[in-house]
Amino acid sequence: MNDTHYRIVRTLRCKNLNVPGTLGLLTTAIGRAGAEIGNIETIHLGHHYTIRDIEIIVQSEDYLAQIIEEILKLHEVTVLQVRDDVLELHKGGKIKMVNTVPADSQESLSKVYTPGVAEVCRLILEEPDWKDTYTSIAHSVAIITDGTAVLGLGDIGPVAGMPVMEGKAALLYQLVGVSGIPILLATTDPDEIVATVKNIAPSFGGIHLEDIASPRCFTILERLQNELEVPVMHDDQQGTAVVTLAALLNACKHAEVALEDLTIGLIGLGAAGLAVGKYLLRYTGKPTLGTARTETSARRHAEHGGIPSSINEIMETADVIIATSGQSGLIEPSMVRKGQIIFALSNPYPEITPELAISAGAALATDGKTVNNLVGYPGIWRGTLDTKAREINFEMYRAASLAITDATSEGELLPSPIEQKVHLAVAHAVARAAMTSGAAQRQLDDDYFEDTSLETLPDGTYGI
Amino acid sequence: MNDTHYRIVRTLRCKNLNVPGTLGLLTTAIGRAGAEIGNIETIHLGHHYTIRDIEIIVQSEDYLAQIIEEILKLHEVTVLQVRDDVLELHKGGKIKMVNTVPADSQESLSKVYTPGVAEVCRLILEEPDWKDTYTSIAHSVAIITDGTAVLGLGDIGPVAGMPVMEGKAALLYQLVGVSGIPILLATTDPDEIVATVKNIAPSFGGIHLEDIASPRCFTILERLQNELEVPVMHDDQQGTAVVTLAALLNACKHAEVALEDLTIGLIGLGAAGLAVGKYLLRYTGKPTLGTARTETSARRHAEHGGIPSSINEIMETADVIIATSGQSGLIEPSMVRKGQIIFALSNPYPEITPELAISAGAALATDGKTVNNLVGYPGIWRGTLDTKAREINFEMYRAASLAITDATSEGELLPSPIEQKVHLAVAHAVARAAMTSGAAQRQLDDDYFEDTSLETLPDGTYGI
Repeated sequence: MNDTHYRIVRTLRCKNLNVPGTLGLLTTAIGRAGAEIGNIETIHLGHHYTIRDIEIIVQSEDYLAQIIEEILKLHEVTVLQVRDDVLELHKGGKIKMVNTVPADSQESLSKVYTPGVAEVCRLILEEPDWKDTYTSIAHSVAIITDGTAVLGLGDIGPVAGMPVMEGKAALLYQLVGVSGIPILLATTDPDEIVATVKNIAPSFGGIHLEDIASPRCFTILERLQNELEVPVMHDDQQGTAVVTLAALLNACKHAEVALEDLTIGLIGLGAAGLAVGKYLLRYTGKPTLGTARTETSARRHAEHGGIPSSINEIMETADVIIATSGQSGLIEPSMVRKGQIIFALSNPYPEITPELAISAGAALATDGKTVNNLVGYPGIWRGTLDTKAREINFEMYRAASLAITDATSEGELLPSPIEQKVHLAVAHAVARAAMTSGAAQRQLDDDYFEDTSLETLPDGTYGI
Repeated sequence: MNDTHYRIVRTLRCKNLNVPGTLGLLTTAIGRAGAEIGNIETIHLGHHYTIRDIEIIVQSEDYLAQIIEEILKLHEVTVLQVRDDVLELHKGGKIKMVNTVPADSQESLSKVYTPGVAEVCRLILEEPDWKDTYTSIAHSVAIITDGTAVLGLGDIGPVAGMPVMEGKAALLYQLVGVSGIPILLATTDPDEIVATVKNIAPSFGGIHLEDIASPRCFTILERLQNELEVPVMHDDQQGTAVVTLAALLNACKHAEVALEDLTIGLIGLGAAGLAVGKYLLRYTGKPTLGTARTETSARRHAEHGGIPSSINEIMETADVIIATSGQSGLIEPSMVRKGQIIFALSNPYPEITPELAISAGAALATDGKTVNNLVGYPGIWRGTLDTKAREINFEMYRAASLAITDATSEGELLPSPIEQKVHLAVAHAVARAAMTSGAAQRQLDDDYFEDTSLETLPDGTYGI
């Protein structure tokens, strides 16, 4: 793990005399020192002085010290406080399991618990499908990790990865009202992982694998998909592929080209790269060029219909470059050809920054901050669960990609994940595709597709 | 499974002319037909007529029909509606996993998810104990079942048992603010259960085993206690034992006798019976008499210091009878001796009803509806988690029993589980015992014990 592989977020409470232009000086000083600026909140706006909370994102504590030094050079500004709002926010974790029905009186107890509950148990015993109506199973997804490939941090173990899993769960509820249950695995052995997940699967409506390293993730996913009756996805594979295609379709729109006419080259063939290649082949019918650090990865890509290539050949011949190598700065500006579309997706530091790529002649360039799985997996799960689909098939993933593309504002590559409309569009598109492709075990009617809040489940209601 | 082994709850909406005495006639008719009456809610109270929702608990649909027939014989009353509020309440399940921090703006996303979250991961990687502060692990308990001994329903499987697990989880949050995560096991093999639970244990601060049949539950509990670093309890063993002792101490108070002077006989030596015997031996220093249907159960009781006996010998010689046999009506009134204390705990139908036992001469009698685990496990978990105890030892269980006894109102055997004060008292008592017995890995200060709301966690806050 490398120190450059993370960034810290701090909030600086700055006080300055109420002189016009001071905020400009302040933000310029911060920018010059190399920090990104997030939210700026005005705490006090008086006749004499102003107090603001300025959120900054920097690469290290050392940078932070430099930035504060730069700020203090401005005579008009005092730094009152340096706050770590991120840690503060994480206290006690980011999720909790709550009751959705009252259990605060003798009467409600008799319904939630004994004796009332026994009848619900019997009902499910007699007709197992009632579990989807009378338990939380059908709108719960296990978010399962062994912690071997967490964000850009690598193999940090499942417990250190828990803040990411809780983030995924928090967003799953916030965005589409689905319960995400983090499950941290004490094993990295594929056989044990498969056995364990199978043994706990009855609790969930779906299995969301997260941050499991390749190549183990491929066999684990495949076996679970074959051996379980509930849908299984690995976000780092399918989630990334869905969102990448959506962004690519928008990129083609901007560049006024047809995706089918373009040669696509993949740099990096891990979980994400391989999945993107397989998905694009299925979508366009055209194989991708691919290169990877290991021979095994390259061979796997070839086995899935890809064309083995080299980084130089790809940079020289491909119209679209999709890089998921994990190697910051791998693509030199001199390698970029005029008019290329470059997706340098490694997080947090891309193979080439969009700015550099554009100045080197790329028609369009983006990075992993923009091509964010968050616009994909929540709606995919909601549409899948609502139709009780037995699997998430290609038609459903394709519907998700197209819905994301459609929900994108003019001039953008992808919608913002905080916009509810994209999750609604993805959920509905995936649900429709589940029904037309035959994966759905429940047919939804017009009422479902007319609901624009996602607040109502097909069975019963619960508020997001 | 037997049809007598459950009861149904229905709500009758009854309309009657506003004639004094009608409610008396109505409730008498219902009672005569053999139903219990729950809540009565007045919907409309007019000059001419009254409408009330009357909750009734009956043994079957047939009984329900009889009751309605009885009611309709009263000329003043019309039944407007028969509602199944229990099923209605269970729609969509009883629990959900929600986010406790906002994730609805670009700014909050950058804290809850990338890039902010990476720093929290790194912090935990460097110092694993931070997981207790910055994730939900420390206040989450897995509620794990294989569905082999659910309520009085028996081996109905884990999915049909889910409403019970959700009930336990709903109450855990409602009563003490702890997240309960139901885990339904697709296996009943002890080795596989142990391996599976160990493989998912990092996600949780504690393991709550529920409704796993004996004798498998004994080895599963013991192995998990030995092999895991987090506390493990089996509610049907320890939870029942704790609450039974609390009720017994109150019974002794009423009867003005000392528990140590009494001979205690156990009828039924399954998970509950055996655990009660072991716990009472440890508490009083005196062995219990015991009898069971199988030789193996009786031998197990003897191995744990119990004295093998027979049902007749126990009824003839014991001062206290604790029956957990699962056999409705096993104790004939003629077997009861004058002055005995009789706990007939099998649910939902006891070995002898309290009324019959009292009329046969018992000094005091109760059943499993009164001796309810709900006054135990929530506070036990809260006190255990708050002190980060590595195990739940005898001192902690004893403290829980004594706290429950102390929190009981004059004249009652146990407090009502809906009273917050009992859970607070148990949590605090267990936390103190964890500290004095050396199980605690965190020492709590006076502030903790002065908080009377349970709303605040030792680290950070979250609302119940």
